[in-house]
Amino acid sequence: MRMRNKPWALDYLKTHSNLADVEMTYAGNVSDFFEDNQDLHIEVGTGMGTFITTLAKNNPDINYLGIELDKNILIRVVEKILEEDLKNVKVALLNAADLKEYFNSDEVDRVYLNFSDPWPKNRHEKRRLTYRSFLSSYKDILKQDGELHFKTDNQGLFEYSLVSMNNFGMQFKEVNLNLHLNEPDDNIRTEYEAKFSSKGNLIRRLKASF
Amino acid sequence: MRMRNKPWALDYLKTHSNLADVEMTYAGNVSDFFEDNQDLHIEVGTGMGTFITTLAKNNPDINYLGIELDKNILIRVVEKILEEDLKNVKVALLNAADLKEYFNSDEVDRVYLNFSDPWPKNRHEKRRLTYRSFLSSYKDILKQDGELHFKTDNQGLFEYSLVSMNNFGMQFKEVNLNLHLNEPDDNIRTEYEAKFSSKGNLIRRLKASF
Repeated sequence: MRMRNKPWALDYLKTHSNLADVEMTYAGNVSDFFEDNQDLHIEVGTGMGTFITTLAKNNPDINYLGIELDKNILIRVVEKILEEDLKNVKVALLNAADLKEYFNSDEVDRVYLNFSDPWPKNRHEKRRLTYRSFLSSYKDILKQDGELHFKTDNQGLFEYSLVSMNNFGMQFKEVNLNLHLNEPDDNIRTEYEAKFSSKGNLIRRLKASF
Repeated sequence: MRMRNKPWALDYLKTHSNLADVEMTYAGNVSDFFEDNQDLHIEVGTGMGTFITTLAKNNPDINYLGIELDKNILIRVVEKILEEDLKNVKVALLNAADLKEYFNSDEVDRVYLNFSDPWPKNRHEKRRLTYRSFLSSYKDILKQDGELHFKTDNQGLFEYSLVSMNNFGMQFKEVNLNLHLNEPDDNIRTEYEAKFSSKGNLIRRLKASF
């Protein structure tokens, strides 16, 4: 997702340093970012933040951290957190390639990937968030029984990810090839998911552990 | 697939004992069934036989054996073999649960499963041909680098099979969630596949090894 560049975005995020970590301030000390010491779920690529803020509202006993590379998007998530006055959700301006520098090993209870960029060209395979180098990062930061929950409407990315995660040795818990056919009560639709499902795209989901 | 019962089916098959093994005559000696000593591919559940007879015609350097439980269906496959005068394809009246009694370990080069009965009820899980007991049989009779090629249009069975094969430790080679979108040149459509694809069903395929 791309947003128009907002020259004031970084300043805005810095004035909300209690909600947004823009300089890896909490690297190695993520628990200090939150009021309560409880399970930590992260979303890699937040989009506009509907998914993670809804989860945070529904699950006050879990801490949520949204990772996002684009500061222009991140201000929308911060706005949502402020509107809802949520205490258990924060964001960090961070490249997914740097996850292992930000989190400790065995620190995260769950990783969410939602509608990641499919990077369809073969020569861009290494940029896909389900490429083995990223899987290696998730494995490192996740606890032993932690899970990766992955959603996409992109057929090619889902096919690729099934093979990539299988070949990496991950253990599949659930595969759903049409999530909205009998939509689970606990599914939170992202902005993208709501829009493209209404256009007829099939939403797929995979839950797996390492 | 069910066919009307033909009281003469078994007699018909027995008169074609050079094409159809109805009494496990070649158990442990499958190579004696064929003229040429070459790679062996099997299809578990032949349907009317279009798939395996077309493969046999296209690949004279491979031996094909079709496994089928229903003698009434098997006569249709024998008729096709006779019509085309094919030397490298045979059939056996056999329950898939008895594969290990029929084949030696490491004897088969490839196993095809096409549009197997989905058995959608949870209590019938053990009857699905991708349940772990069947996977264990395929693993036993397949050579080390042998592959299982699985096609279905049934969403539930495909989801189940992805999890079952992954949990069994199989290595995925290819996942295709819409085989007819860019249909590979080498895809052979079964009778069922042609019919239900034209009704709009998505055809899925998985290739994997043990």
